[in-house]
Amino acid sequence: MVTRNVVENDYFAVMNVMNDWWEGRQISHLLPRLFFEHFQSTSYIVEDDNNCLSAFLIGFVSQTNPKEAYIHFVGVDPELRNKGIARELYYLFFSTVRNLGCNTVKCITSPINESSVAFHKSMGFTATLGTDYAGKGHHRIFFLSSLYNIFIISK
Amino acid sequence: MVTRNVVENDYFAVMNVMNDWWEGRQISHLLPRLFFEHFQSTSYIVEDDNNCLSAFLIGFVSQTNPKEAYIHFVGVDPELRNKGIARELYYLFFSTVRNLGCNTVKCITSPINESSVAFHKSMGFTATLGTDYAGKGHHRIFFLSSLYNIFIISK
Repeated sequence: MVTRNVVENDYFAVMNVMNDWWEGRQISHLLPRLFFEHFQSTSYIVEDDNNCLSAFLIGFVSQTNPKEAYIHFVGVDPELRNKGIARELYYLFFSTVRNLGCNTVKCITSPINESSVAFHKSMGFTATLGTDYAGKGHHRIFFLSSLYNIFIISK
Repeated sequence: MVTRNVVENDYFAVMNVMNDWWEGRQISHLLPRLFFEHFQSTSYIVEDDNNCLSAFLIGFVSQTNPKEAYIHFVGVDPELRNKGIARELYYLFFSTVRNLGCNTVKCITSPINESSVAFHKSMGFTATLGTDYAGKGHHRIFFLSSLYNIFIISK
């Protein structure tokens, strides 16, 4: 497997797997093509030996607070889960944004996404409930981690 | 009227007007709260004397190419259109991103949005058709302008 920064055309490969990887949940609208165009330096694709998509991570540095990085979207092929691929992508992101001057990483998930909550806690993120975050009744879980608390895998 | 940078809670005020301002088109998913959190330094709200939302512009600097800025979303109260408010917001954005080192501004719209096409052409943007940009049959119009070609209103 090879990990590389995203390019704009990866948008189509990701759109092609979203239904399968998220079990039919309609979420492709959360990841418009602009993320593949404008946040390439902090976003990654993992491909297998046949250049097929195995995983991806889309993140960026906050422009409101440049010491803060945000992981917007992460996906791993269901057949390749629990092998540490997401963890490796997170470490790569942490390393990149630390070099860009960040000291904090944030992410957000839906409370129903229990595997995401468990994963982020295992990565050392603290979790907080954000009531009505996206409108009345649309709660979210906020994850926060200081990069100083995370062991950065040297590449 | 007062123009200021967005704060995160402006998300709710914008969501409240989207149905009305876009005549019922379901487009609020294009503007998740993260844009109000992470791109405040290049995003603006215009309010009237009663602190009611009159217009907004959400934009950011590309992190793939930091000389390029992107205007993601712009809205003006239908009762306040054709008064130059969007134009003022664009000039404010141009001035801000030029100070941040940008030399180019991009935006994208749907081909059916004829008023947007006319507005951007009047602002000096060149327009190009992006066939299948967001998937098969989902064409878009790309707008591009060099900041060196734009007269920046001094504040």
